[in-house]
Amino acid sequence: SRSINLAVIPGDGIGQEVVAQGLKVLNAVLPQDVKLETKEYDFGARRYHASGETLTDADLADLKKHEAILLGAIGDPSVPSGVLERGFLLKLRFAFDHHVNLRPSRLLPGVATPLAGQPEIDFVVVREGTEGPYTGNGGTIRKGTPHEVATEVSVNTAFGVERVVRDAFARAQARPRKKLTLVHKNNVLAFAGHLWTNVFNQVATEFPDVTTDYIHVDAATIYLVTDPARFDVIVTDNLFGDIITDLAAAVSGGIGVAASGNINPSREFPSMFEPVHGSAPDIAGQGKADPTATVLSVALLLRHLGYDDEATRVEAAVSADLGERGDTTRTTDEIGDALAVRVAG
Amino acid sequence: SRSINLAVIPGDGIGQEVVAQGLKVLNAVLPQDVKLETKEYDFGARRYHASGETLTDADLADLKKHEAILLGAIGDPSVPSGVLERGFLLKLRFAFDHHVNLRPSRLLPGVATPLAGQPEIDFVVVREGTEGPYTGNGGTIRKGTPHEVATEVSVNTAFGVERVVRDAFARAQARPRKKLTLVHKNNVLAFAGHLWTNVFNQVATEFPDVTTDYIHVDAATIYLVTDPARFDVIVTDNLFGDIITDLAAAVSGGIGVAASGNINPSREFPSMFEPVHGSAPDIAGQGKADPTATVLSVALLLRHLGYDDEATRVEAAVSADLGERGDTTRTTDEIGDALAVRVAG
Ligand SMILES: CC(C)[C@H](C(=O)O)[C@@H](O)C(=O)O
Ligand SMILES: CC(C)[C@H](C(=O)O)[C@@H](O)C(=O)O
Repeated sequence: SRSINLAVIPGDGIGQEVVAQGLKVLNAVLPQDVKLETKEYDFGARRYHASGETLTDADLADLKKHEAILLGAIGDPSVPSGVLERGFLLKLRFAFDHHVNLRPSRLLPGVATPLAGQPEIDFVVVREGTEGPYTGNGGTIRKGTPHEVATEVSVNTAFGVERVVRDAFARAQARPRKKLTLVHKNNVLAFAGHLWTNVFNQVATEFPDVTTDYIHVDAATIYLVTDPARFDVIVTDNLFGDIITDLAAAVSGGIGVAASGNINPSREFPSMFEPVHGSAPDIAGQGKADPTATVLSVALLLRHLGYDDEATRVEAAVSADLGERGDTTRTTDEIGDALAVRVAG
Repeated sequence: SRSINLAVIPGDGIGQEVVAQGLKVLNAVLPQDVKLETKEYDFGARRYHASGETLTDADLADLKKHEAILLGAIGDPSVPSGVLERGFLLKLRFAFDHHVNLRPSRLLPGVATPLAGQPEIDFVVVREGTEGPYTGNGGTIRKGTPHEVATEVSVNTAFGVERVVRDAFARAQARPRKKLTLVHKNNVLAFAGHLWTNVFNQVATEFPDVTTDYIHVDAATIYLVTDPARFDVIVTDNLFGDIITDLAAAVSGGIGVAASGNINPSREFPSMFEPVHGSAPDIAGQGKADPTATVLSVALLLRHLGYDDEATRVEAAVSADLGERGDTTRTTDEIGDALAVRVAG
């Protein structure tokens, strides 16, 4: 009989509430014969304040025993900016080599967008997750003086670029439109830009049925608001991906419905799935948080583990729920219950 | 009697057409006693193809004799990507130390925006122009092999950050709302982020009447589409500024109306004013280009040279023209004529 061994990291703020709904839906959608084992971890602000720790080697060894990780949200105003981001979120991405940062954007029926005219939006951003300006390379001299110099080094390797570009081509090939757009700034960042463009063009020869396209990152932000329908799959650098996926989430209904996967396709390490939104401490504990983004992250998790039918059922349940939502105000729990009923039925 | 000694660079594609309208309006708005001297330069694709040159030391020495530069657009598909960008546009910004890259965004009456509900948009981005990831620092090893490593180094100095932050504070102080937002990614790019944040907070103490704010660049793209009215003045890094000003132009009516100034506030070198749009070779020579962005760049030029009343008149003429434009289709020349009549009247 099959089983899923899942690490659960509720985290801070609304994390606890939304993760509970994600698990509820996961339990409801899984076939009877699949045994779901979960272990909860207390990472985040509480743990940091109690022990000063964010993510230790022992923690990583524990997490590594699981097949996947479901995370709610990490971050609290009581912790200095950057400490949990670099000490937990990024540390985990790098330690588990989450090089495919997957961020789908679909404007679902019934969901409000800031764009006029309710455009068609259905694309996926494949953001590189382990290189670029996120490596922590760089430094500071003469700190705090009028002669301070601070550098940030974006590190890009053929190995790192090729694996994520290849993954993106495969994802594009599996979609009806079969289109892949490289987003970079190769006219200015010529060293990294040349590497990305060259690898992209080389890998393209192996996927002759995929249509390719190149857009500078600045122009990409224009298209995301004037013509988002032009995108199918986008592959991009870590920092450009960070920026355009927040914009993509905003135009396709907001971060309340944006899901993401930090994926290691080789499954050598567990992949992590999380809503794009943060911990929203202002509404925490009030049952006001929308668990939809977490539930959609559960769908990504299911697909990653090979439960394609179940993933599709979760996505269909979310679409149906959003389509019928109208102006009703429901609690976090009520939305979770409604989705659990839909996927079970 | 007063005079303006202007270098004119029509450049490629629609550059010639739009610059002609900019000069027409400039001539019409200047008081009789101001003598306008212009000298035209042939930089761009033609010069590159004829001589292989983009911008020589002798060119820079010639340009330096002028008080300001008006540029149409540089770039053509016949020139490899990056050659004119780095060999001309960026070279000029660095050679003339254009550290204040000024990009106002106003949603003018009658102008279409991709955003629903016609929000109020009236902010200015002060983009740093001589540092960050634009310095060309970095390199490549093992080029073209599976072991290639390419780096890009973002260089940030206290000197460079402080002067642009100070300029932005002064601009914010001169505006009714007196609000300045720092946009960066200091939770991830900790070296540069610390320098920017620290300098920003220090300079803030000299401007106690300016309200300050900090937003990560990814979140800034969300606010630009969901709540652009929250912004008054934004100060940011060279690359973040490149990205968010294209988005800002898109939401406030498109690059057809977006103006920019590459400014050296000390006037040690001539500042350069140009529309944000490119050379649009597909519509070049057909009288279809909208010269509005160039005319608004002329307004920035006038204000930089101390002709505040004239700048205001140009902006008012553009607002009035856009407000009454409706569905009429006019040629580049007709729009320029209409604006020239308005500023003269
Ligand atoms: C919290 C932060 C470190 C993170 C990032 O920059 O990647 C976030 O913005 C994201 O997109 O997941
Ligand atoms: C053409 C390019 C070099 C330039 C930049 O990246 O700065 C452009 O995008 C801009 O914003 O002026």
